[in-house]
Amino acid sequence: MPRPSMREQLVEAAVDYFHEHGFNGSGIKDITDAAGTPKGSFYNHFDSKEAMAVEVMNRYADSRQMGMLADESTPPVERIRKHFEFLAADLERFDYARGCMFGNFGAEMSTQSSVIREDVNTSLARWASLLAPALEEARAAGALKSEMDRPLLARFLVSSWEGAAMRAKVTRGREPLDDFFAMFDSITT
Amino acid sequence: MPRPSMREQLVEAAVDYFHEHGFNGSGIKDITDAAGTPKGSFYNHFDSKEAMAVEVMNRYADSRQMGMLADESTPPVERIRKHFEFLAADLERFDYARGCMFGNFGAEMSTQSSVIREDVNTSLARWASLLAPALEEARAAGALKSEMDRPLLARFLVSSWEGAAMRAKVTRGREPLDDFFAMFDSITT
Repeated sequence: MPRPSMREQLVEAAVDYFHEHGFNGSGIKDITDAAGTPKGSFYNHFDSKEAMAVEVMNRYADSRQMGMLADESTPPVERIRKHFEFLAADLERFDYARGCMFGNFGAEMSTQSSVIREDVNTSLARWASLLAPALEEARAAGALKSEMDRPLLARFLVSSWEGAAMRAKVTRGREPLDDFFAMFDSITT
Repeated sequence: MPRPSMREQLVEAAVDYFHEHGFNGSGIKDITDAAGTPKGSFYNHFDSKEAMAVEVMNRYADSRQMGMLADESTPPVERIRKHFEFLAADLERFDYARGCMFGNFGAEMSTQSSVIREDVNTSLARWASLLAPALEEARAAGALKSEMDRPLLARFLVSSWEGAAMRAKVTRGREPLDDFFAMFDSITT
């Protein structure tokens, strides 16, 4: 049995490496070097780089704290805003250079790996499905000005956030995220 | 002197290849094979794959018909909508699989190539700067409900479109673009 700690070292190193360099920009040796494990250790723990990428993305998804969106102890508009501010702070931590892993993998890998494409699809759909009830709550509380269908608005906000995170990566600054927040503030009270 | 037609063959093949496979997913031999030219022909015409990618992206930018946004013979809201519908039709042509090249390169290459990152940045900024005056016109004509600053709204729409194009790639369908149009329609008359 391989030691679980080595597997964990590999996943942790891969989360960072994939996030910064993308899938094709990350070699197996890059990841094992970053993890401080022998190159041969990779295939003791993962069937393929693709299988590892899916695990990495699931780990990333868990770190998005999407549960915040269902925390009814905070009013819905404030809660949604805090959720996106949490994501913004995470982008800022890396000088906006890394973007969102969902969008990175979606843009880079959708034509190359149906497994990765499906995983991104599931992650983004889950995110929108957690956002929609919070928007519904906001609407019921009279705090959402927009009359747009809430599931549609949730999908739109998720896509728009992804575009903003990509553009923050390109501009290396927060302006695209501020634009997102300005729009969000314009439709809420 | 190399024949101009071979250079042109290479660029045309590279536009398609990069768009579908991304930068790291496109080998020089893939591109010369797709162009039907010998592998050695590449370095007669381009200093690097990166230099070729910049030329490809400029060719792609030219094909976006951004001039439509300044065509005052069409009312501004209709003109903006037609512009995005033109982009949507282009995404549909490839079953939504290719996404937008700006967003693809922005997501994949921003940490790996400052040259590509800068080129994406310039392209997206130019696009927003052409969209802003059309939004201003719409506002002056009473056809834009949103009171958001027009340059900000223009940047937001560009980022949101990029997110929607990425998500269309991931879902392999038009829904994310329809969400974008629904939001656009909700702020215009």
